[in-house]
Amino acid sequence: MKKNQKEIKASDENCPVRRALGLLGGKWTLLILFQINDRVMRYGELKRAIPGISEKVLIQELNSLVENKLVSKKSYHEIPPRVEYRLTKMGLKTLPIADELASFGLENSV
Amino acid sequence: MKKNQKEIKASDENCPVRRALGLLGGKWTLLILFQINDRVMRYGELKRAIPGISEKVLIQELNSLVENKLVSKKSYHEIPPRVEYRLTKMGLKTLPIADELASFGLENSV
Repeated sequence: MKKNQKEIKASDENCPVRRALGLLGGKWTLLILFQINDRVMRYGELKRAIPGISEKVLIQELNSLVENKLVSKKSYHEIPPRVEYRLTKMGLKTLPIADELASFGLENSV
Repeated sequence: MKKNQKEIKASDENCPVRRALGLLGGKWTLLILFQINDRVMRYGELKRAIPGISEKVLIQELNSLVENKLVSKKSYHEIPPRVEYRLTKMGLKTLPIADELASFGLENSV
């Protein structure tokens, strides 16, 4: 191995990058996490904040984010019903990934 | 808007996070970039470094990474033929994203 080359293990199922991508790698996942960010968002606000995402996909993604404990969901028993989403502590830990994606996107006019 | 909430624009096609995900969001893309890293890798080495990726998908991904100028490909006219892949300058700028994914993956035992 050439001098000063990093020793990188194979990306098998124990690889942290692979595991993180397994959780966050969906087409819309990191974008939804980025949009919720440090805010409290309702379904309608999220739908408007991510042009092009379908109702069905957004609902599926939100349900799996809640199931994976990245997002918490609070329902208010009012008329009309009100549902709020916010990032959990673990969800907030994905924001540095979104920040790096943003810097790359800005810097490289991709 | 509540005090000290970030002002986040809608993630339309100008959103840098969305643009970066458009380029890097494939299932294997960031994993391939992470494995090449600061190294020079051959196809066979990459195939072994990413268990589960098929020959066809790895070749497709590498071709699109070269086309998108994230990876450079060097062919040596020898017998047997030798082809080497390394990250371009822009490709190297994706590594902080992989590093954040690794930290998240390690920290959150996902």
